Amino acid sequence: MKFSKKAAMLRLWLASLCLLASVLQAQDVADIPEAVRENVELLIQKGLDDTVGYAFVRDLTTEVGPRLAGSEAEARARRWATQELAELGFANIRTEPFMIPYWSRRVDRASIVSPAPQAMVITALGGSTSTPPGGVEAEVIRFENMNELRAASPDVVVGKIVFIDEKMTRTQDGSGYGMAVRKRQNCATTTSNMGGVACLIRSVGTQARRFAHTGMMARSAAIGDGPAAAVSPPDAEQLTRLLENGPVQVRLDIQVETQPEAPSGNVIAEVVGRERPEEIVLIGCHLDSLDLGTGAVDDGAGCGIVVGAAHLILSLDEAPRRTIRVVLYGAEEVGILGGHAYAKRHVNEMDQHILAAESDFGADKIWRFAYARPPSTPTASAP
Amino acid sequence: MKFSKKAAMLRLWLASLCLLASVLQAQDVADIPEAVRENVELLIQKGLDDTVGYAFVRDLTTEVGPRLAGSEAEARARRWATQELAELGFANIRTEPFMIPYWSRRVDRASIVSPAPQAMVITALGGSTSTPPGGVEAEVIRFENMNELRAASPDVVVGKIVFIDEKMTRTQDGSGYGMAVRKRQNCATTTSNMGGVACLIRSVGTQARRFAHTGMMARSAAIGDGPAAAVSPPDAEQLTRLLENGPVQVRLDIQVETQPEAPSGNVIAEVVGRERPEEIVLIGCHLDSLDLGTGAVDDGAGCGIVVGAAHLILSLDEAPRRTIRVVLYGAEEVGILGGHAYAKRHVNEMDQHILAAESDFGADKIWRFAYARPPSTPTASAP
Repeated sequence: MKFSKKAAMLRLWLASLCLLASVLQAQDVADIPEAVRENVELLIQKGLDDTVGYAFVRDLTTEVGPRLAGSEAEARARRWATQELAELGFANIRTEPFMIPYWSRRVDRASIVSPAPQAMVITALGGSTSTPPGGVEAEVIRFENMNELRAASPDVVVGKIVFIDEKMTRTQDGSGYGMAVRKRQNCATTTSNMGGVACLIRSVGTQARRFAHTGMMARSAAIGDGPAAAVSPPDAEQLTRLLENGPVQVRLDIQVETQPEAPSGNVIAEVVGRERPEEIVLIGCHLDSLDLGTGAVDDGAGCGIVVGAAHLILSLDEAPRRTIRVVLYGAEEVGILGGHAYAKRHVNEMDQHILAAESDFGADKIWRFAYARPPSTPTASAP
Repeated sequence: MKFSKKAAMLRLWLASLCLLASVLQAQDVADIPEAVRENVELLIQKGLDDTVGYAFVRDLTTEVGPRLAGSEAEARARRWATQELAELGFANIRTEPFMIPYWSRRVDRASIVSPAPQAMVITALGGSTSTPPGGVEAEVIRFENMNELRAASPDVVVGKIVFIDEKMTRTQDGSGYGMAVRKRQNCATTTSNMGGVACLIRSVGTQARRFAHTGMMARSAAIGDGPAAAVSPPDAEQLTRLLENGPVQVRLDIQVETQPEAPSGNVIAEVVGRERPEEIVLIGCHLDSLDLGTGAVDDGAGCGIVVGAAHLILSLDEAPRRTIRVVLYGAEEVGILGGHAYAKRHVNEMDQHILAAESDFGADKIWRFAYARPPSTPTASAP
C-alpha cells in the first residue's frame, strides 16, 4: 500500500475533523475540558497516521468509479459503502432512499465548421437539453460575460450560438468558483429567451488545459431551457481568435437521456453515544459524483475524511457521549437532493442535531479553521 | 497584439537560429570574422524583439488548426503558408507535392465493462486497424513493459487485450521519449503475433493528466498489425488497481479510415544568396501535425522559428552570400515522408547543401547549444 502526498493531506483533514467532531460541542474551541483534551490529542495523533480515510477514497473510486446521481453506479456505490461501513464496525447502517429526476449525457461534441474546420473539446452541462439529432449549426456570437449578453439586443442573438467567454478568478476561499458558475446556471435560459439556439460557456476553472468542466445548469436538478456546453479554455481562446477575423460557424451536437424518476439514497452509519445516544453530531459528505471522472476529490475525499474521522472515534476505548452520525448523501451534484431528503425525513428530530458538518471542499492543505453558529442556535450543553 | 512568455522563448530561439544560419558556415563557431560578427549581433538583437515567428505560429494554428498528413487541412496549411511567405517577401516560393498513404481516426473509445463499468480516456495510435464494428470486448492482461510481454507464453495472451503499463522517464535531452515510443511502435505487432486481440499502452508522456497522447505505431506510415490505443495515465492506474483485485473486462472500439494515396507536399521559400546562390543553407520544420491538437508546439513553433529567422536575414540591407532555403515539410508525423520526398527530389543537388537544420523540439528555454559535422562531410569554405 503506497501513500502519496495527497494521502497525507487527507490524514491531516481527518485529524482536523476528529477535532471538530469531538470538540465543537463545547461552547468555545479554546475552552476544552482537561478530560476531553486527552482524547483530542490522541485522535489527532492517530489521524495523522491513519489509512482508513485514504483507503476509502481509493477503493470507492476504483471499485465503483463515477457515480452519477440516479444511475446504476450510484446504487452500486451505496451497496459498496454499506458493506465497507459494516466491515469498519459502524452501527445502525442503513440507506434512506428517495427519488430524483435523472439526466445523463449520451453524446456531446462540437466542431468549428468554418473558417478553420476542427473539433473542439466540450462537455454538455448537466441539465442541457438535446439538440436536434445530428446537432445544430449556427454562427457564434461572443460575449465577455452574462451582463454583456443581457444588455445585447435580441436581434443579434436570434438563431445564433451564444458564447460566454468569462474567465474565472482564482481565490483561496472558493468565492471565484461561486461567481464563475453563475454563467453556467443562467446562460441557457437567457439565450433561449433571446432567441439563441444554444449556449457555450468558457469552462469553469482556472487551469488552462484542454479539458472542459461539467456541472449542473440549474440548482434543482431541473432540465434547462436549451442545449448548453462548456468549452475547454484553449478552445475558448481559439474561438475568440477566430472571431477577431470574422464570422465563425459551429456545429453542436448534444443528446441526453432523462427520466422523471430514478432512485437515489443517503447511506447512514453511526457510532452510538454512551450517555445521550439520541443527540446527534452529524458529519457528512456526498457519495454521488459527476460522470466525467471518478469523483476522487468531489467528493470521495470528503467521504474518506468523515468515515476515517468517525472510525477513529469508534476505535477509542470509550464511546463518545453523543451519537456520531456519518451521512454519505446521494444526489448532491444535481441540487443537494440528498440533503433535502435528509432534512425532510428527519424534520422532527432537528433539535436533536447538536452539530452538522459536511466535508466537500477537497483535501488539500488546511489554510483556515473557522466556524460559525447562527445566533438563533441554542447553545449545546458542555460535554 | 499580446505576447506571452512563450512568445519571448520563441524569439530567443529565433535569434539563436539566425546565429546558426549565419555563422555555422564558418569552420568553427568561435572563429567568426569581424565583418560577419556585426551582422550576427544585429540579428540577435532584432530576433529578441521580432514578432514574425510568433505571429506565424499563432495564425497557422488559428486560421488552419490541426493539419493531419494527407488531409484537406494539410493542403489548406500549404496554401496558407504559401500566401504568408509571399507576404513576408520571400523568393522562389513553391510546393513540391508527393503522395502518401492516409490514415485517420473516425471512432476511438474504450470502457471498463466489469467489475466497475466506466469510460476510459484513450486515443487510437496512428496506423491502428479498426476493431469489428461496435468494438471488441475481452479480458485485459497487463505487462510492465514490452520485454515482459515478449517473455510471456502466448497461451496467456490469446484472445486478450494486452496492456503495456510502462512509464516514461523524464529526461532533458528527449531520450526518455525515444525509449517510451518503442512500446507504441511494437505493441500491436507483438500482440497480434501472440494471438491477442488488441493492444493498449500507457500514454507516452510524463504528465499525470487524463489525456492520451497519440503518435504513429510504425515508422513508415504503414497500417499496423492490429487495433492499438494509448490510455491516459489516470486510466492506466485505474486499470492497474482493478487488476490487482481480479479480472477486468474492457470494450475497445476503434474505427479508422485509410486510403492508399493522399496528397502531401513540402512548401519551400528562399532568401537568394548574393554570391553563391546555388549553395544552400536549409532550415526546416514540419507543417503537418497530428489531429488531436493544433500542433502549436509540434511543429508550429519550429515553423515560426525558421520562418522568423529567415525573415530577419531577408530584412538585412545585404543578402546573405548563400541561399537560405526554408522548407516546411509535409507528412513528418507519419514517418518523415516530407524529408524523404525532399531528399529523393533533390538527390542530385545534395553537394550544394552546405548545412541543413530542422527545428522540431519545441520552443522552451534553450538549455544546450551543440552541433556536429559528420566526419565525411566536406568542410565548407569560410564565409
